Amino acid sequence: MMGVMRLGRVEVRVTDFKQSIDYYSNVMGLQLMAQENGRAYFKAWDEDDHHSLILVEADHPGLVHVGFKVRREEELDRFEKALEEYGVRVGRVSKGERLAEGQAIRFTLPTGQVMELYHEIERPGNGLKLNPDPYPANLKGIAPPHLDHLLISGDDVKGTTDLLMNVLDFHMSEQVILQEELTATFLFRTNTTHDIAVIKGPDAKLHHFAFALNSWDDVLRAGDWLARNNIAHDEGPTRHGVTRGLTIYFFDPSGNRNEVFSGGYAPGPDFIPVTWTEERFFTRGIFYHRGESNERFSTVFT
Amino acid sequence: MMGVMRLGRVEVRVTDFKQSIDYYSNVMGLQLMAQENGRAYFKAWDEDDHHSLILVEADHPGLVHVGFKVRREEELDRFEKALEEYGVRVGRVSKGERLAEGQAIRFTLPTGQVMELYHEIERPGNGLKLNPDPYPANLKGIAPPHLDHLLISGDDVKGTTDLLMNVLDFHMSEQVILQEELTATFLFRTNTTHDIAVIKGPDAKLHHFAFALNSWDDVLRAGDWLARNNIAHDEGPTRHGVTRGLTIYFFDPSGNRNEVFSGGYAPGPDFIPVTWTEERFFTRGIFYHRGESNERFSTVFT
Amino acid sequence: MMGVMRLGRVEVRVTDFKQSIDYYSNVMGLQLMAQENGRAYFKAWDEDDHHSLILVEADHPGLVHVGFKVRREEELDRFEKALEEYGVRVGRVSKGERLAEGQAIRFTLPTGQVMELYHEIERPGNGLKLNPDPYPANLKGIAPPHLDHLLISGDDVKGTTDLLMNVLDFHMSEQVILQEELTATFLFRTNTTHDIAVIKGPDAKLHHFAFALNSWDDVLRAGDWLARNNIAHDEGPTRHGVTRGLTIYFFDPSGNRNEVFSGGYAPGPDFIPVTWTEERFFTRGIFYHRGESNERFSTVFT
Amino acid sequence: MMGVMRLGRVEVRVTDFKQSIDYYSNVMGLQLMAQENGRAYFKAWDEDDHHSLILVEADHPGLVHVGFKVRREEELDRFEKALEEYGVRVGRVSKGERLAEGQAIRFTLPTGQVMELYHEIERPGNGLKLNPDPYPANLKGIAPPHLDHLLISGDDVKGTTDLLMNVLDFHMSEQVILQEELTATFLFRTNTTHDIAVIKGPDAKLHHFAFALNSWDDVLRAGDWLARNNIAHDEGPTRHGVTRGLTIYFFDPSGNRNEVFSGGYAPGPDFIPVTWTEERFFTRGIFYHRGESNERFSTVFT
Repeated sequence: MMGVMRLGRVEVRVTDFKQSIDYYSNVMGLQLMAQENGRAYFKAWDEDDHHSLILVEADHPGLVHVGFKVRREEELDRFEKALEEYGVRVGRVSKGERLAEGQAIRFTLPTGQVMELYHEIERPGNGLKLNPDPYPANLKGIAPPHLDHLLISGDDVKGTTDLLMNVLDFHMSEQVILQEELTATFLFRTNTTHDIAVIKGPDAKLHHFAFALNSWDDVLRAGDWLARNNIAHDEGPTRHGVTRGLTIYFFDPSGNRNEVFSGGYAPGPDFIPVTWTEERFFTRGIFYHRGESNERFSTVFT
Repeated sequence: MMGVMRLGRVEVRVTDFKQSIDYYSNVMGLQLMAQENGRAYFKAWDEDDHHSLILVEADHPGLVHVGFKVRREEELDRFEKALEEYGVRVGRVSKGERLAEGQAIRFTLPTGQVMELYHEIERPGNGLKLNPDPYPANLKGIAPPHLDHLLISGDDVKGTTDLLMNVLDFHMSEQVILQEELTATFLFRTNTTHDIAVIKGPDAKLHHFAFALNSWDDVLRAGDWLARNNIAHDEGPTRHGVTRGLTIYFFDPSGNRNEVFSGGYAPGPDFIPVTWTEERFFTRGIFYHRGESNERFSTVFT
Repeated sequence: MMGVMRLGRVEVRVTDFKQSIDYYSNVMGLQLMAQENGRAYFKAWDEDDHHSLILVEADHPGLVHVGFKVRREEELDRFEKALEEYGVRVGRVSKGERLAEGQAIRFTLPTGQVMELYHEIERPGNGLKLNPDPYPANLKGIAPPHLDHLLISGDDVKGTTDLLMNVLDFHMSEQVILQEELTATFLFRTNTTHDIAVIKGPDAKLHHFAFALNSWDDVLRAGDWLARNNIAHDEGPTRHGVTRGLTIYFFDPSGNRNEVFSGGYAPGPDFIPVTWTEERFFTRGIFYHRGESNERFSTVFT
Repeated sequence: MMGVMRLGRVEVRVTDFKQSIDYYSNVMGLQLMAQENGRAYFKAWDEDDHHSLILVEADHPGLVHVGFKVRREEELDRFEKALEEYGVRVGRVSKGERLAEGQAIRFTLPTGQVMELYHEIERPGNGLKLNPDPYPANLKGIAPPHLDHLLISGDDVKGTTDLLMNVLDFHMSEQVILQEELTATFLFRTNTTHDIAVIKGPDAKLHHFAFALNSWDDVLRAGDWLARNNIAHDEGPTRHGVTRGLTIYFFDPSGNRNEVFSGGYAPGPDFIPVTWTEERFFTRGIFYHRGESNERFSTVFT
């Protein structure tokens, strides 16, 4: 069973719906695809699918669900069965519950987050399918090409990691082991360092979700754009030791942490994982250049 | 059957063995892992496997075989069976035929090249597995992190494409259709624009094989290093329209075309392919900036 | 006498006025400041002065005049006297002959081009003088920050070089000596590799004028924008051996060659010049990566 | 009188001579030119002069003197006279007081630092004067091409600024005015944003001296190299609002703050200065991305 393709969507709560739509449209530079029933749907410019980010108005920020797209519709049944055999209770999301989506299966990770698997979604495409230029002419804002990964927190890091690896066939690129306890894992289905990562922390929480950028130069331009727009900054531009990624962290208007991420390496299913220990994780692992973490980065979850 | 992981190795003929070893070691910046029985084995610094490039001395350049690594040893039997059902004659390569490798299955593509599938190979690793820095300290030469893709030529582009897609489950990122004929295809197993591409041309030939670079800046540094070493230049630095990749082409001492490649996008199995036609393929498709191909690029194969 | 500050303006002939205005506005990304009496005046976004490029409609392309800005108005008299003592006939351009400009002195270089020295010009500024962001928010097109240099041709390379160095106190960064003849010189007043260069060729002609870019990444984006707009390409992206500069050459709609240029080094008046000879000028000197020039680059002047 | 060419050298105290030599050789990547009489002399690879950094062993870090190179030897007399007329007491440094240097004039700035003006110094060159490649083949460490600028502190910012502008003909690119008091100035002789800057703070102190880098990508590589070598980090990679520069700050083994700096713009003597006020200086002025300064950056001087 090898059908999970990629992180397809994150649904997050925002406390000021209008301001958030403005932020994700004009600062992050996503395309607002639709607004309906209290939800706003966005896609990044290079994605073929209808949306990868869903905003829902709420009185506090955080993650509603994370969705991974599987290769074929019929795999939903197989994953449902495998999850239940593994001891996970699985529900169904009907087609039409949200816009442009088909049905999905839904379950809760040991760390408390709701995950969905789905295949069907409308596919408007990226508009670059016939003799194309390499990117659209009039991108605005940061304009990342696609959603990249997310980092979730909870107590049972091992439980979520095992489920993702054993049932959904995720692979591990890196792990953090502090005082012999598995403290964080970086897991992938695409050939990137992580599509999802799990870290010890409060249950059912989101640390950040990240959009991809093409280069360190794009990270600089993103930083410039964020500063110009007075977006709350968390860290960067810098390099992570973990994953080698080039990054900036910042906050959306509701306090959900965002990242733009470039670089890293290209692991396959046979990649020999990297291990970080207390010897270097807090110095070179998190922020490679600075050599120490920042308080906010370690403590703010939504 | 979804087990092909990536382009694992290319074996190429070189006419001056010693000069070629020097070139791939000091100009390309690969690590010479072993030299035995008339073959030299190289790995790029970020690869875990023992080698990705094998040189064999011969009186003319060209491709001996291209090898794709599959996820599990037992998949060899399944692929063997599937290929034979598809009408392809399959042979076995015994463990020990080349250094550090296990057994493989071998067959010939409709375009004439020999392809192998294998799983077993010694794995020295990249040396960056415990609290690592992001790359080794003393890289020399271009020092690409890993082998990326190759482009082969032949008459039956459709035949090779169909075999790769239908039996080995490759996905298509881009295709070139000139006067209604399928002229080139770009196929992937990893989330890159191509692990292998096939183009109309002389049978059983190699157009180029490519190593990955991390950035446009690394492409510049590669170009500088090639110039400093008076390596025969073909084209670049530039961008391809096809794949959006950033590139330089050049020739090894025997005349095999090499490329270093960065960028492109990150397609999944559900990617909606891009199509190029005579309207733009020869202008913006091949070399996006220059707007025309060069004679040598279109006619030199080894 | 050390008062020449920089290349202040080039006035060029264009054969299609309207199309040229569109090109310099939307492709090159300059700001159209005014249009009056058959001339169009442009400034680059980071320049404080009113304009650095003037277009004049004509039946053939080419250079009308090149203007260098001196530090103080009173230096015009001193330069006039010094030029006349050197044997150069000097004329006066009255304030108001062109828009926004004060008076200038005018003379003809030994290679045949008309040069002006001036101080007075209106100064709208770059709009970034109080607590600024690092660049304007809504730049369009290539949007170079400023005019950088020009290359002129003629028979008497030595004559023009001597005049610029001996009377106007230009410094030499690089020279090309082929078969013991001074074939090209690169001269500067700012701390860049050249504000003006002179090369053996047809008298009174322009090889190209160049705008500055900040980085190799900006050179790529410029190349992408030129390709998207189907602008006639000459060469690049590449690096020059001479000056180390990173570059693309292309043509405006009338056939005047343009360049965007980044990099190089930062010579002072005491810089020990670089010399190029036939041994490497045509291989690594002109286009460092390619290792040879292109026919068009060596033969097209306007 | 326009003869000051550039920041030619800084002489700094170090508390561990041997470790400092190792640091500036292998981490910063300068060339150790000589060691004599308790001093170590370094040049950056692209400088023609014998040295730009002098280390002297002492029991506390800090600046011994800053030297600016003037264009001609005879200008020393003229500057001496002008300084004395301005009310500054001027001394002479004899040829041979330090290695490879000719005579100099010496005086103390109103902010307390010792400044020298000189012309004569041995000139080994950069080794790239005949048909050169764009840079040496075997650079080690960060390897900046040249010394760029320094920032000094003191109470009388206006006094030092006036002296530099009125007597030495420095130009101003930017100034910081807080509560109507001139708090910092950025002054240049080359076409860069600053060769020297002055900021309100303890008298006779050094905030940092900086070496130039060519690109944002080089800033990343510098950051990587610093982290790999566990060098004490201060801030960055980031962009300054002031000067637009791209930067990392860090400390040499004695606690002298170093910077590597890229970018900025290219002002001439007629540049209209930028002014920063309390409205944005502490948010976007110092560290543009982060939007706030760091305690250490504002309080540590040597």
